[in-house]
Amino acid sequence: MHEPVVEITRREEFSAAHRLHNPAFSAEENRRLYGICNNENGHGHNYAFEVTVRGPVPAATGMVMDLNLLMVILREEIVSVVDHKHLNLDVPFLAGIIPTAENVAVAFWGRIEPRLKGFEGCRLHRVRVYESRNNFVDYHGPTR
Amino acid sequence: MHEPVVEITRREEFSAAHRLHNPAFSAEENRRLYGICNNENGHGHNYAFEVTVRGPVPAATGMVMDLNLLMVILREEIVSVVDHKHLNLDVPFLAGIIPTAENVAVAFWGRIEPRLKGFEGCRLHRVRVYESRNNFVDYHGPTR
Amino acid sequence: MHEPVVEITRREEFSAAHRLHNPAFSAEENRRLYGICNNENGHGHNYAFEVTVRGPVPAATGMVMDLNLLMVILREEIVSVVDHKHLNLDVPFLAGIIPTAENVAVAFWGRIEPRLKGFEGCRLHRVRVYESRNNFVDYHGPTR
Amino acid sequence: MHEPVVEITRREEFSAAHRLHNPAFSAEENRRLYGICNNENGHGHNYAFEVTVRGPVPAATGMVMDLNLLMVILREEIVSVVDHKHLNLDVPFLAGIIPTAENVAVAFWGRIEPRLKGFEGCRLHRVRVYESRNNFVDYHGPTR
Amino acid sequence: MHEPVVEITRREEFSAAHRLHNPAFSAEENRRLYGICNNENGHGHNYAFEVTVRGPVPAATGMVMDLNLLMVILREEIVSVVDHKHLNLDVPFLAGIIPTAENVAVAFWGRIEPRLKGFEGCRLHRVRVYESRNNFVDYHGPTR
Amino acid sequence: MHEPVVEITRREEFSAAHRLHNPAFSAEENRRLYGICNNENGHGHNYAFEVTVRGPVPAATGMVMDLNLLMVILREEIVSVVDHKHLNLDVPFLAGIIPTAENVAVAFWGRIEPRLKGFEGCRLHRVRVYESRNNFVDYHGPTR
Repeated sequence: MHEPVVEITRREEFSAAHRLHNPAFSAEENRRLYGICNNENGHGHNYAFEVTVRGPVPAATGMVMDLNLLMVILREEIVSVVDHKHLNLDVPFLAGIIPTAENVAVAFWGRIEPRLKGFEGCRLHRVRVYESRNNFVDYHGPTR
Repeated sequence: MHEPVVEITRREEFSAAHRLHNPAFSAEENRRLYGICNNENGHGHNYAFEVTVRGPVPAATGMVMDLNLLMVILREEIVSVVDHKHLNLDVPFLAGIIPTAENVAVAFWGRIEPRLKGFEGCRLHRVRVYESRNNFVDYHGPTR
Repeated sequence: MHEPVVEITRREEFSAAHRLHNPAFSAEENRRLYGICNNENGHGHNYAFEVTVRGPVPAATGMVMDLNLLMVILREEIVSVVDHKHLNLDVPFLAGIIPTAENVAVAFWGRIEPRLKGFEGCRLHRVRVYESRNNFVDYHGPTR
Repeated sequence: MHEPVVEITRREEFSAAHRLHNPAFSAEENRRLYGICNNENGHGHNYAFEVTVRGPVPAATGMVMDLNLLMVILREEIVSVVDHKHLNLDVPFLAGIIPTAENVAVAFWGRIEPRLKGFEGCRLHRVRVYESRNNFVDYHGPTR
Repeated sequence: MHEPVVEITRREEFSAAHRLHNPAFSAEENRRLYGICNNENGHGHNYAFEVTVRGPVPAATGMVMDLNLLMVILREEIVSVVDHKHLNLDVPFLAGIIPTAENVAVAFWGRIEPRLKGFEGCRLHRVRVYESRNNFVDYHGPTR
Repeated sequence: MHEPVVEITRREEFSAAHRLHNPAFSAEENRRLYGICNNENGHGHNYAFEVTVRGPVPAATGMVMDLNLLMVILREEIVSVVDHKHLNLDVPFLAGIIPTAENVAVAFWGRIEPRLKGFEGCRLHRVRVYESRNNFVDYHGPTR
């Protein structure tokens, strides 16, 4: 019988400071471009992010992959590195990147995707990053 | 290098009254069709809606488009017109339309889409309208 | 042994239209007093309300009173009367009352309190009414 | 004129116990595979699920299908059968199935899809099952 | 200067099964008393609970007590013992107690209160237990 | 007739960075006291706060005070000063104060209370500050 294909999603949260600023632009251009998000001393958010993995469901386990294992990967690769940190100053994998929600989602994809290599038939489907309940972004990867 | 393609979403809320009623049908047909939503004096909701824009992320800005600008567009085109209003009686762009969530989503698309013309590479991807936490609709536009 | 005293709370929701308007005042005074809530055709909300009952917990049952029974009382006395209605025009127990959140909470108290008479040792402790996530009121009854 | 195509979603909730366990595996294998979810006496969740139906919006009604009718179908087919039950022991349509979120979503699809046969132009688009705010799965059906 | 008195609250969550049943009553009496919560094989919830500690805020630290330390106490005393368990069968500190929300809150108080002894000026103020978003109970301790 | 006494609450949100650090303590003491919240470059939150005002409800208006006016006061006194700022570095009314949730709540009380002087019969009842869904504090003022 055909195995059904299902998407599983795990949500995690972290708290961090950031500042939107491109050193290649003038102070005035930065202010016009990023508005209040350009505040020199930074501001912060309770970020949330959701990671979705797509794959077949084997009858023997009933699971695309173990959601608790996915949780462990997300905490190792993301939460432990960014929680209670300043995204511009404290996070090696974001060095040199303007930490907009868009760039953060793309960078998270790059951290998580290699960790899923060993899970047969599974592939990373979406990374969603919430800066707040009202602002969020979705990234479906480079090949879409 | 290739620019990643990301979807950004902004959520806004408003409070409004409405009534589901088609004057072409009899009172009995309206009651059968719309149930308690046909109540003559109307009822109301705290509506929420999410607008998603899809586009490439330029390295210089790290943003598909400024989420604060998207917020301004949504408040000008939608919230300022429908908040604390009766959708059947007070909203010019809904005149003659039965204000179901489906029709409201399609009408919102028509208000927002022209405002995104100037944003190179961006296109409106989805309008979601929540009547409540338990009832919502998604519209992906006429060309899909 | 002494029975512990506990407060139990049940939350219910309903959708309704309303208008804030005092016919004793001029149109201008009403607009100044109630702002956008004075809109002639009304507006609406997904209301939520929480009803709290305080009483001892008998060892034999472990319950102040049956929360499902409290749910039934709230649906009979409140939800079935106000859901998908216009609070100014359709609800007998609000006739002649300006349906502010404060007045709605006091009126709900009057509906619920008599229904708790038969529950030994229990008394109504609080009625909370949410007009939205950001606006709510609490009423603790006339004797406090 | 062309009828717009819209997706409508209804969300429902229920509370249930379950245990993840495959009798074909040893106790040790089950513990490794399912972790704390393998607890012999089971555990439980406040599940939520969302059912999405996709279809055209006729001008005469403004509705893909009546959301209240969809609610009735979900309560008849799902909620009335699983609410306040043990998914492994009390639910005929889950008999012999390991009640992971993935398998539950697939089984819900099988219950709901036949009930939508009579709705012209409508088809079941997605079943989402939440075990908690942080864990959920999506199933788009066998033909995708 | 006088130290301000503040209440701090920490929220935690766990998933568990339970059954409401008093073996001193007949099957019929149990069914009438507890309704669907009497289901023989149990059901379950994503429980949440909030623990509030009240005390003065010293100028040197600005904290009633360290919220992270309160988090650790709650996880040691409660979450690690009840998460992914059956409250009637797996939890020593609930043995012989009908696991209504009221009794669970009183039992949690008994676990947490002794752990706050060493925090000068602090006292346990409230334990709130949510069985769901719509049902919750508050316990303020035996001396109130 | 006696005017009922009701408490009205308005909720607002803002995003800010902060760092918990007392310059009178050594680096090691600060790390022990504040843990990850002592990170040198700060971190951040989507804060929410609720302000509750208690007073009688005059029959003529049905309102303790205009909730929209309370909203304006909160935005002028708090949100416009702290949103998208660093609480340690950018906020004059928090200068020299360790920005724990406790101290922030006490400082907010000091900003809001004078603005309520002109509202006859009303008094500030509670300021609640959420650092996240899981951590919040309540302040009831200096005289309680």
